Amino acid sequence: MTDRALTIGIDLGGTFIKAGLVDGEGAILSRASVATDLSRGPAGLLADMAGLVKALLGSPGDPGRRNDLIAVGLGSPGPLSPSRGLIYKCANLPGLEGFAIRDELGEKLGMPVAFDNDGNMAALGESWLGGGRGAGDMVMLTLGTGVGAGVIVDGVLLHGHFENAAELGHMIVQAGGLPCTCGQSGCLERYCSASSVARRAKEALGEGRSSRLTELVAEGEEITSEHVARAAREGDTVCHQIWDEACVCLAVACVNIQHTFNPARIVIGGGMSAAGDFLFDCVRGHFERQRWSLAEDFPKIVPAELGNDAGMLGAAKLARDSGGG
Amino acid sequence: MTDRALTIGIDLGGTFIKAGLVDGEGAILSRASVATDLSRGPAGLLADMAGLVKALLGSPGDPGRRNDLIAVGLGSPGPLSPSRGLIYKCANLPGLEGFAIRDELGEKLGMPVAFDNDGNMAALGESWLGGGRGAGDMVMLTLGTGVGAGVIVDGVLLHGHFENAAELGHMIVQAGGLPCTCGQSGCLERYCSASSVARRAKEALGEGRSSRLTELVAEGEEITSEHVARAAREGDTVCHQIWDEACVCLAVACVNIQHTFNPARIVIGGGMSAAGDFLFDCVRGHFERQRWSLAEDFPKIVPAELGNDAGMLGAAKLARDSGGG
Repeated sequence: MTDRALTIGIDLGGTFIKAGLVDGEGAILSRASVATDLSRGPAGLLADMAGLVKALLGSPGDPGRRNDLIAVGLGSPGPLSPSRGLIYKCANLPGLEGFAIRDELGEKLGMPVAFDNDGNMAALGESWLGGGRGAGDMVMLTLGTGVGAGVIVDGVLLHGHFENAAELGHMIVQAGGLPCTCGQSGCLERYCSASSVARRAKEALGEGRSSRLTELVAEGEEITSEHVARAAREGDTVCHQIWDEACVCLAVACVNIQHTFNPARIVIGGGMSAAGDFLFDCVRGHFERQRWSLAEDFPKIVPAELGNDAGMLGAAKLARDSGGG
Repeated sequence: MTDRALTIGIDLGGTFIKAGLVDGEGAILSRASVATDLSRGPAGLLADMAGLVKALLGSPGDPGRRNDLIAVGLGSPGPLSPSRGLIYKCANLPGLEGFAIRDELGEKLGMPVAFDNDGNMAALGESWLGGGRGAGDMVMLTLGTGVGAGVIVDGVLLHGHFENAAELGHMIVQAGGLPCTCGQSGCLERYCSASSVARRAKEALGEGRSSRLTELVAEGEEITSEHVARAAREGDTVCHQIWDEACVCLAVACVNIQHTFNPARIVIGGGMSAAGDFLFDCVRGHFERQRWSLAEDFPKIVPAELGNDAGMLGAAKLARDSGGG
């Protein structure tokens, strides 16, 4: 690999496909994106991704560097198999079950494609350039529609025997708690994802509980976790209770992460982390109160730094690490 | 390392120090043990361990093989630092805090000493020769006085950034649950260790609940987890409830282990596992009911096979893996 080597990271999401041409320092030289359109089946999706790659290489800013491209990295929602290069099943990407997306894309591009799930890609991105920089051992939680996660041990992504490691959104943090779509009860995701927090607020309003969000709903506004955070910060009882419970559950997850992986850092991103200190102070407070007293050193709980680019940058890094071959 | 290379594994416990001379196939060529005596301080302990090594090498059965000994492995309760070779603090080994036990023993023996905690040593032993044999990814739980644990990822023991990884006995399985000596609430250890199960039965009797164990206590018998298991199996309501709750908590731990490490096998040993199928059927049943439905492959939950030798054999293996240098 030369110093000039470039990779492309592709972040395949349920709504958009985003791609970036990335250099060895993690600088994004150009970007392209397109709405995810599954109506034309796997072939249409491949064509769209190839179109993004072509757009990136043909970008006017840097027409001379297409020979420096060594590989493409692709992150996708799962469950999927990185080793086999296919998606098992994904509610947000219907019609792709069992499709050999990695090898098909590689063949279409005439170039090696590295493949992993979106949670792992975000972790790799943050480990390379963001909140996990310099920490060989880190755990990433992305609190968005669901709770994505990735674990890096000694600089290497953890996959596990069945390639389903680091599915921390489905760690049970409230035994016998709220039912999750995954079939379990009391999953982290059911309390701490941005959607779950918004949903719990809507449920509370539906039960007739009084909250300053009632007005917003009357105005036809769609409640988000940011509304809940703001109302909680302003002293709204219902929202404060939901927010605090989310932070308690996150702290339980952090205690369990400390006892399982014992990382240097726990990096938290996604929609919930937009609340900034209001989230982190609350989670760190509950972590301090709940954690054991037998050790002196604990993982630092820190914000993610790359925002929506984490997955794309992680995919570019995976392509780079795979050495283009 | 020659084919004839031997190592000695030492299992330093709160009650006994056990040692074995072990060959490359894991056969124990000779054994020696002595009561743990801390009254003479660290120097006395070193002398006792050196005495065990001498006894093993001088064993009449194999006097000619002392030249084949390449290294000694030492497992100890923690928390401890494998990299620094010292015990931080240990309730069962008072007076050893901060003692550079690995290097001091190495100097006394004139031989390399490898060092790690007892949970990791048991995991390594079971991975080498027992319930985890052939599984590159496995998690071991030892349900004894406490809950010891060790995690093997791709054939390598997981230590974590602060060397406190795999402390799974202090995973929170009941948020806000029973207080643990570690300062947390709802730890796995508080529900599933052999001592906790016995203690909970005694507490129930103390509250005046009617159980077939009442007679045993009247006879002056000390209640153990085996008594609880037997009574539960025979239909005793109080004991059945305690036993079942222990299995529910173990199943929650197994779900979380599945989502964190995603190992091929979860190996369970220690006093609780003496109940055999009565434990394993119950835990597997609750695991099946609690686990998610998004994957098809799950870790197998299997019994440990090496009994009380796991830690000693693991220590012998660690010494072997360290290559004697």
